[in-house]
Amino acid sequence: MPKHAMLELAITLPPRGSGAVMRVLHRELRAAILDGRLKPGLRLPSTRILADSWGVSRNTVMGAYDLLLSEGYLFARHGAGTYVAETLPLRTERASIIDETETEPDARLNALWRSPPPYLGKPWVSSMASSHAIFRLGVPDTASFPFHIWRRLLARSLRALAKVPAAYVEAQGRPLLREAIANHVSFARAVACRPEDVVVTAGTQQAFDLLARILVTAGRSTVALEDPGYPPLRAAFVAAGAKLAPVPVDAEGLVVERLPADTRVICVTPSHQFPLGVAMSMRRRAELLEFARVNGAVVIEDDYDGEFRFGATPRDALQTLDRSGSVFYVGTFSKSLFPGIRLGFVVAPPWARRALITAKQCADWHSPVMEQDALAAFISEGHLARHVRKMRKLYSERRELMMSSLQTHFSPWLESIPSSGGMHLTALVRESIDIETIVRSARQRNMDVRSLRSFWDDGNGQAGLVMGYGSSGPEALTEGLLQLRRLFPASAPARVVWGSSRLVAESR
Amino acid sequence: MPKHAMLELAITLPPRGSGAVMRVLHRELRAAILDGRLKPGLRLPSTRILADSWGVSRNTVMGAYDLLLSEGYLFARHGAGTYVAETLPLRTERASIIDETETEPDARLNALWRSPPPYLGKPWVSSMASSHAIFRLGVPDTASFPFHIWRRLLARSLRALAKVPAAYVEAQGRPLLREAIANHVSFARAVACRPEDVVVTAGTQQAFDLLARILVTAGRSTVALEDPGYPPLRAAFVAAGAKLAPVPVDAEGLVVERLPADTRVICVTPSHQFPLGVAMSMRRRAELLEFARVNGAVVIEDDYDGEFRFGATPRDALQTLDRSGSVFYVGTFSKSLFPGIRLGFVVAPPWARRALITAKQCADWHSPVMEQDALAAFISEGHLARHVRKMRKLYSERRELMMSSLQTHFSPWLESIPSSGGMHLTALVRESIDIETIVRSARQRNMDVRSLRSFWDDGNGQAGLVMGYGSSGPEALTEGLLQLRRLFPASAPARVVWGSSRLVAESR
Repeated sequence: MPKHAMLELAITLPPRGSGAVMRVLHRELRAAILDGRLKPGLRLPSTRILADSWGVSRNTVMGAYDLLLSEGYLFARHGAGTYVAETLPLRTERASIIDETETEPDARLNALWRSPPPYLGKPWVSSMASSHAIFRLGVPDTASFPFHIWRRLLARSLRALAKVPAAYVEAQGRPLLREAIANHVSFARAVACRPEDVVVTAGTQQAFDLLARILVTAGRSTVALEDPGYPPLRAAFVAAGAKLAPVPVDAEGLVVERLPADTRVICVTPSHQFPLGVAMSMRRRAELLEFARVNGAVVIEDDYDGEFRFGATPRDALQTLDRSGSVFYVGTFSKSLFPGIRLGFVVAPPWARRALITAKQCADWHSPVMEQDALAAFISEGHLARHVRKMRKLYSERRELMMSSLQTHFSPWLESIPSSGGMHLTALVRESIDIETIVRSARQRNMDVRSLRSFWDDGNGQAGLVMGYGSSGPEALTEGLLQLRRLFPASAPARVVWGSSRLVAESR
Repeated sequence: MPKHAMLELAITLPPRGSGAVMRVLHRELRAAILDGRLKPGLRLPSTRILADSWGVSRNTVMGAYDLLLSEGYLFARHGAGTYVAETLPLRTERASIIDETETEPDARLNALWRSPPPYLGKPWVSSMASSHAIFRLGVPDTASFPFHIWRRLLARSLRALAKVPAAYVEAQGRPLLREAIANHVSFARAVACRPEDVVVTAGTQQAFDLLARILVTAGRSTVALEDPGYPPLRAAFVAAGAKLAPVPVDAEGLVVERLPADTRVICVTPSHQFPLGVAMSMRRRAELLEFARVNGAVVIEDDYDGEFRFGATPRDALQTLDRSGSVFYVGTFSKSLFPGIRLGFVVAPPWARRALITAKQCADWHSPVMEQDALAAFISEGHLARHVRKMRKLYSERRELMMSSLQTHFSPWLESIPSSGGMHLTALVRESIDIETIVRSARQRNMDVRSLRSFWDDGNGQAGLVMGYGSSGPEALTEGLLQLRRLFPASAPARVVWGSSRLVAESR
């Protein structure tokens, strides 16, 4: 006879008040523990919850728990609930087949695959340092985010949803959100688009993944990526089976003349190259679009922090300049709101739209409804524009602080790359110091700085330092720069007069 | 000189109060309309929002808008905002290349692909009927959902999130949610698992998609699917390049002996076969697990509505019975909460876990943080168990109503398949009536009934009717059955005494 699933026990329990209920509960729980359905270390629901979900009295459940506790099948942690005992007389057959060490996916997965397994790699880490670390990369400051407004809009969306029958909705994205996004990018980035050109995605990562899936033929399509570049983008195209062509970047952005002739897809960050921070020149933009037109290639324009440009004349998006329907414009709300929202979008040329929507539906049907609706209101009521304007000012000040400190106190070793936007800075190593050791030391001291090496395709390009300034305020950045400076050689060339008190004073 | 992105105009605007600001705004807006950056029909932001985001006075923006209105570049809809005019003297080059008709993805996409393009299909529709239709399939009733509790838990999660720096989080899913899920399925479905065995996904669809991506070698792997079965599941495996093997289902579930010997992946719905509704017998479960063990195949167990079983002895999940680490157990909160939440999970064997997590990170990094945290609290505080218990009673009553009506009033034509759970019923066509015509008529009358034909692999299996009863209350279902009955032949065999008043009376 098959064992009963626990929640369904209520159905076969004897009548209440007979005392038999407790005995059945006890027997079934013990059986479940012994045969491994309830695992060692599992925390049991509270007696209140269990009594409620089984429709029995709480005393009955407590009686069964007490018996199991006295028999050693359960143990209680004071104030922290009741757990299945870690050591039991019997080990189940099941437990023995579970590989507790879990070093590598086992031969099983290799046996299932016959072509190179794209998912055998480790998931990349978002940040090795804690979320309180300084210089975190790609993470915005949410201390100034109007969470009270966001909470109000979420509550409003939820109230509206509660009034209509539940439903699966449009894979392309909620119409009001697509309208809001179309307006936003038309105004903020001069990207010409209509609501029907927009496909809502789960952040930039899903945009890359879906585009890789519709644009790449495994084993055949050559995809050009900026080198250095963004590793998670590379991961999406590797998974799709693309032949990757790393292409160098100089002070004008991607070196278009180095694109292989058979390139089918070109991924670029023209506003603010990741990680170097340079903007692609107008000349290069024109060359790139011409290359795409002549060779029948498409361009994926990742405008991950395009909202945050300071002072310098902004350049039009490639999508704005394109006249041949070659450009997919990718935007995200991870930087302008916060990464936990998981919403981004693609502005797609009409010829690819249906394939992209089908891929989105195949991937996860649609993005969460409530958050889409709240974001639509957040944009269309002007909160996004207002927040971006505020943050642009804050980030601009932090960038000034960083640049000035790097130029003043790190100039013997580092040369920062001019950049006019975003939330990070990259500096090249000027002299032959061991930057990898400095990075390791810094990371041990809660500074989330990165070595530029980790962004090169072969891990072997020019050495440098990549530092985020989005998530920390000026005091923390100043303190961080001070600490970072201590990790560099103590003796600097004579022209730099060095003193920790001056660093703080000068860099503000 | 490149055109400015609109939001950045503020930077180059003349000093306030000079009158020149308005003229620059006017000139730039007109230029943007003429060169197609602002498209015909686009709704402009309100003057308040624009003034706020550009840091100019509202009067200035109104002045520029008024000028453009008088020149015919804009038009105003009373109370509905200001729009870019639909007809303009100049058409941009850009507009001419956009294919407004958009019938098929054009040759461009075909040229990029050299192997069969899996995404050229149309996205499937979730429901052709409106969300107020009767008999909707796969959609729960949310009228009884405790939205007030959900709103409170969301607000609490958001408050907690607002206090910590923003961050990208674990691709596998938030630890507290994985712990809550592990407890939930251990108790509710006797699925033995620990938090580290759980991978959180964007609903069942993403679970299928990620599993297809890690388990299928394109062009080589044979994947067995139940026939009839769930079309979106098929879509995920087609996209991964699987060789599909439709396998018949009988009253005991999947006919295991019909599995091709080279099958690598077997997708089943053992608790409540979709769409037939039968439960897989214990004998077949044992045969299936033995097949997987002997042939080195894996099983994907889709337990989409496993919480909703009524009365009959529940059978253990395949995952519970498995002793060789062959089973991936897939669960969802689309039915126990609502589909808009987009959260589900996979309980994965240890050997596949790392690949699955890497695939999840590649697909969308991680699921939204706030909703994961709120769901963790919803489960661990007992709200899910309570809600499921309440809904099980409601759905059970509706099923009784449906079964009784089908047996009493549709028995000359339909034979309902015994089923002891879930939110839908399937009936086979007993006599040679034209069920497709009846389905079409019903759908025109706002009844979301489906023809069983649409769930067969070749569209040509036995005829039948699939009806959901999850989303409608007993009054609506009774009314719907009454309307549906009118679409069947008026004259029934003599043994059925027919009267509309009796249908209502008897079926309750």
